[in-house]
Amino acid sequence: MKIKVGVLGATGMVGQRFIQFLAEHPMFELTTLAASERSAGKKYSEATNWYLDVEMPEKVRDLIVTTTDPKNKEFEDVDIVFSALPSDLAKKLEPEFAKEGKLVFSNASAYRMEEDVPLVIPEVNADHLELIEIQRKKRGWDGAIITNPNCSTICAVITLKPIMDKFGLESVFIATLQAVSGAGYNGVPSMAILDNLIPYIKNEEEKMQTESLKLLGTLKDGKVEFANFKLSASCNRVPVIDGHTECIFVKTKEEAEPEEIKEAMDKFDPLKDLNLPTYAKPIVIKEESDRPQPRLDRNIGNGMSIVVGRIRKDPIFTVKYVALEHNTIRGAAGASILNAEYFVKKYL
Amino acid sequence: MKIKVGVLGATGMVGQRFIQFLAEHPMFELTTLAASERSAGKKYSEATNWYLDVEMPEKVRDLIVTTTDPKNKEFEDVDIVFSALPSDLAKKLEPEFAKEGKLVFSNASAYRMEEDVPLVIPEVNADHLELIEIQRKKRGWDGAIITNPNCSTICAVITLKPIMDKFGLESVFIATLQAVSGAGYNGVPSMAILDNLIPYIKNEEEKMQTESLKLLGTLKDGKVEFANFKLSASCNRVPVIDGHTECIFVKTKEEAEPEEIKEAMDKFDPLKDLNLPTYAKPIVIKEESDRPQPRLDRNIGNGMSIVVGRIRKDPIFTVKYVALEHNTIRGAAGASILNAEYFVKKYL
Amino acid sequence: MKIKVGVLGATGMVGQRFIQFLAEHPMFELTTLAASERSAGKKYSEATNWYLDVEMPEKVRDLIVTTTDPKNKEFEDVDIVFSALPSDLAKKLEPEFAKEGKLVFSNASAYRMEEDVPLVIPEVNADHLELIEIQRKKRGWDGAIITNPNCSTICAVITLKPIMDKFGLESVFIATLQAVSGAGYNGVPSMAILDNLIPYIKNEEEKMQTESLKLLGTLKDGKVEFANFKLSASCNRVPVIDGHTECIFVKTKEEAEPEEIKEAMDKFDPLKDLNLPTYAKPIVIKEESDRPQPRLDRNIGNGMSIVVGRIRKDPIFTVKYVALEHNTIRGAAGASILNAEYFVKKYL
Amino acid sequence: MKIKVGVLGATGMVGQRFIQFLAEHPMFELTTLAASERSAGKKYSEATNWYLDVEMPEKVRDLIVTTTDPKNKEFEDVDIVFSALPSDLAKKLEPEFAKEGKLVFSNASAYRMEEDVPLVIPEVNADHLELIEIQRKKRGWDGAIITNPNCSTICAVITLKPIMDKFGLESVFIATLQAVSGAGYNGVPSMAILDNLIPYIKNEEEKMQTESLKLLGTLKDGKVEFANFKLSASCNRVPVIDGHTECIFVKTKEEAEPEEIKEAMDKFDPLKDLNLPTYAKPIVIKEESDRPQPRLDRNIGNGMSIVVGRIRKDPIFTVKYVALEHNTIRGAAGASILNAEYFVKKYL
Repeated sequence: MKIKVGVLGATGMVGQRFIQFLAEHPMFELTTLAASERSAGKKYSEATNWYLDVEMPEKVRDLIVTTTDPKNKEFEDVDIVFSALPSDLAKKLEPEFAKEGKLVFSNASAYRMEEDVPLVIPEVNADHLELIEIQRKKRGWDGAIITNPNCSTICAVITLKPIMDKFGLESVFIATLQAVSGAGYNGVPSMAILDNLIPYIKNEEEKMQTESLKLLGTLKDGKVEFANFKLSASCNRVPVIDGHTECIFVKTKEEAEPEEIKEAMDKFDPLKDLNLPTYAKPIVIKEESDRPQPRLDRNIGNGMSIVVGRIRKDPIFTVKYVALEHNTIRGAAGASILNAEYFVKKYL
Repeated sequence: MKIKVGVLGATGMVGQRFIQFLAEHPMFELTTLAASERSAGKKYSEATNWYLDVEMPEKVRDLIVTTTDPKNKEFEDVDIVFSALPSDLAKKLEPEFAKEGKLVFSNASAYRMEEDVPLVIPEVNADHLELIEIQRKKRGWDGAIITNPNCSTICAVITLKPIMDKFGLESVFIATLQAVSGAGYNGVPSMAILDNLIPYIKNEEEKMQTESLKLLGTLKDGKVEFANFKLSASCNRVPVIDGHTECIFVKTKEEAEPEEIKEAMDKFDPLKDLNLPTYAKPIVIKEESDRPQPRLDRNIGNGMSIVVGRIRKDPIFTVKYVALEHNTIRGAAGASILNAEYFVKKYL
Repeated sequence: MKIKVGVLGATGMVGQRFIQFLAEHPMFELTTLAASERSAGKKYSEATNWYLDVEMPEKVRDLIVTTTDPKNKEFEDVDIVFSALPSDLAKKLEPEFAKEGKLVFSNASAYRMEEDVPLVIPEVNADHLELIEIQRKKRGWDGAIITNPNCSTICAVITLKPIMDKFGLESVFIATLQAVSGAGYNGVPSMAILDNLIPYIKNEEEKMQTESLKLLGTLKDGKVEFANFKLSASCNRVPVIDGHTECIFVKTKEEAEPEEIKEAMDKFDPLKDLNLPTYAKPIVIKEESDRPQPRLDRNIGNGMSIVVGRIRKDPIFTVKYVALEHNTIRGAAGASILNAEYFVKKYL
Repeated sequence: MKIKVGVLGATGMVGQRFIQFLAEHPMFELTTLAASERSAGKKYSEATNWYLDVEMPEKVRDLIVTTTDPKNKEFEDVDIVFSALPSDLAKKLEPEFAKEGKLVFSNASAYRMEEDVPLVIPEVNADHLELIEIQRKKRGWDGAIITNPNCSTICAVITLKPIMDKFGLESVFIATLQAVSGAGYNGVPSMAILDNLIPYIKNEEEKMQTESLKLLGTLKDGKVEFANFKLSASCNRVPVIDGHTECIFVKTKEEAEPEEIKEAMDKFDPLKDLNLPTYAKPIVIKEESDRPQPRLDRNIGNGMSIVVGRIRKDPIFTVKYVALEHNTIRGAAGASILNAEYFVKKYL
């Protein structure tokens, strides 16, 4: 028996990625699509300007979009909702769903840094999911909110985890080259980015610098002790449709050769035995000198693998490398879905 | 009386920038254009596929292109040649011109790191020009070779110089986002870069990591003592026509606040009293949170200013900021011409 | 004594082009900038996100933006307003300015096809300006509304005019490849156009198909008799910043060789003796087989020339060729200003 | 038993598409990859810079590349070769393979217009394949050369065929907006096309104007009588990776409403009962006002369907519409393979 699920913010770009991955999902049955008043009452195919270059799944075309109210009858049998809401709406609406007993797997930033809200990449810190007991107790909810990090954070942290485990982390510099899809469909006007780039993404550096420490932190006595290393980011928007690229410079606690770092990354595959449907090898290493490249490599592992290349000795720190992530899959919808798959396997 | 000058490699992209800046130059009279056998004997307008979005100067249209042989009569009265030759040809040909008594101002990398060859940004290390005495003695030349650095190096070093002078330099990380024009007209196929980026530029990181130390080094007893700090670069090609952007993280020797760094950069204007025709304020600071941007800012100071923005406290090092350079002007042709202007004012 | 002028819709993309051209204009003194309530009361430099790659003119930086109300004191001494308003606002506001005695030179489409409103390209149908007598009488205005056509229409019609005059016109097919700037700064999201094109621009084909006939029509007894030929357009948006390209197939009434068409275009220079400041040769012909190209040719004649190339025999009609126009200069702000310059020279 | 096949020009862009489609083909077994001397002797994965965003098929990675000599032992058991050779090499080499008894399905233009060489789109003129009897007799070959048209021709002709069949054709104007992949990997430098387009593609208009008439012509007494209509094309290169878009204006012999044209196109499915593996519905119609778009629609039918939209009344001719084709699949490799599949089904 599949678990019935819904999507909040179903018409937007991340919402569409949720639908792409959930329409034929072996564990979940997608029954409910919610969006703003403007879309509610319409067939999904009429309410939505479908942006993806894969066809809209037949299954959702005629589904009637409902509003983001957990009391709507369309949510009655739904156990899990995936949230692709903008942060301000997420702030208001996600608790309402949790109160009604829903498990909210959220891609929004609103609750990520709350003490009692798990911020999870299952390959990295699945044990943080235990925070939901505290969350439920504290907030009196039957449901819960479980978040995944910002897209650029996920990319970096997945590659940092095996390094930290083996050699310890001291300092990390990251410069990002981020795709326009990360800003939403209307986020970056073409006038702003053709023959151009923008060396600034609002709040992005702050998110990377704080979320990373929580993700790589340790759960102790019902609290996350933040990891004890430093991260500094400089974020850029570039004219690429999908795929965030990150230049990462790492100083480890113990000495490490590039070959050792590469081996640690390559072996990193903590959930391979769980058979999670959306899981792919978390890190795929490319040997060519000029890879990864977003257009060529973003779909590796169905968009769920971080593709790493150019692992080389750093003249100042220990190592430098380049990492690539499909930002609306591994960095957004796929991240929430993987969280839900893991949660269901482990706790339900 | 203007000094007669020629351009080697006159039909390529940097060659065209040389011509754009030299056609109406107050100190130089452009008399000689040299290129490969294939172009020689033709009118410049027929030999050249003019790439720039400014018109080809009327003056050079009918000039007959000659070969890159210093004994050609077209070079007879020429005192200075500007070299936009590819590195392998530069290696062979530039000494031949120097031997014939020409001053070769070269944008090629072939001789940059030779002990007796000045590698110069006039705002940074004009005194290194004195190396040519040693060069002439050692090589028995009447002329000389004077080089300017790689485009990405110039961008970084101009911004690092006022910081080093005031606060000392310890470590510098740089991630670059470089324009396609840096690879030459045919260097980056559109298939390689549309909806894409390439996180690798051959030899670029090495050039940045070594040239910087020579440029910021000290001339002592006829030798350059390399500067004593470390630099690590990660270089990327992005779909931008002109304009290299660099994300720079700096650790100074002494403590410094972002405001102090900004002030040091803003005041940096060492040659302003020399009235060099191609000179512009070397660093222009933008206050907007999302600048500099290549399409909007690359032409500031006629393409000769480095535009700096986002000077902010770094969580690990002292400061981080973003710098932008017009790579084929400040980073190539304009750099050689400024070297020549300075040399003429000071030494001739 | 310069005529005092204002700009309506001063903060938008066409508004900025108006300012670029009017800040140092020999006939006009730019005194008043009007925009929405949101911008009113602020300095122009604070109210505006300046999009152009030329610097904001010093002169307007501190000008306080006012609202689009002709009774504001800032409009008191203003004789001419240039309108870059969106069509719905233009519909409502332009008559209010005309009523208050202002000459409104409008780039908006709202009144273009009104019987008593001149739709003018001065090189093509300057005599249609006489319609304003009828307009004033009919509407009881002291001022008047004078419009210029849609950007794509201007490009085509300027090239068709000399052909019609010499050989007559029967049928014209046009396929356009239009720049994103034509849709306004936020008009085309980057997600919509990177590695893509959109074969549709709302109302554009209709505008081209009707405006052309009015422009090339004949003023008779106070009415424009529409030109008697047919035009069919297919319009596309392409990832180009500025510069509309048009593939034009023409059937003339009388036989004509490509060389004759070229000669007619090249000689077409009807206003050259008027010394209008914004005037440039209306048609510039490129001989290279692969020109015109938007990035290389859009600024010819300061963006006021239509650049034509590939004039060749058509296997079905008489001739085919390619035309290029800087759409926000010749196709928008520059068009209105040239109308005003002509009007002032002829009628004031 | 599968038929053994080889690919000539296997390392280039069209060669790679051949491999993508042939690696797991139900009728063909890909055994032989041939390329230039430079690649011969190497493993395919080492000889090739793989450009596609799908992974290189495991199967070909270790295949040793051979030279394009039909006497090589690697060609011994091969019955069919697919040619992705450049035109000049095709001219020389394809006859050598035909002489050796191979069926050469060629994407090259060298022999397309030869009287005894079939130029075939199987949905359009499969009967022209009978020309090979004449070809063999005349040239004394055991094998044969069978060609498919130029990419832009295929797109247009597939949409014209059902119109011609039902209403007759009189005149056709076409303006193309063609992807950069059509010029080969190195064909269009990024410097030439970023923020730009090129209104010229060498020989493209001529190919469209002649090939169309042969394709839509009638085989009579061993000769193709060319179709009796006129076509005029204007071809443009635009910054799109894959996907040629064509704006088509058609004058039919008999009157036809847009709805009737649409119906004729939609019903056009002549080979649906043959179960050819690469076959997809040849024309897919999109109802949205702004489609087809290359990035969103090029992969419909696995890249084998022409996607048509905006079928509307033309003010001069009968109808105008927009057609889109995946140029390296339907317009190149897929076209040759479909020819081969059809040939095998019908004649072997």
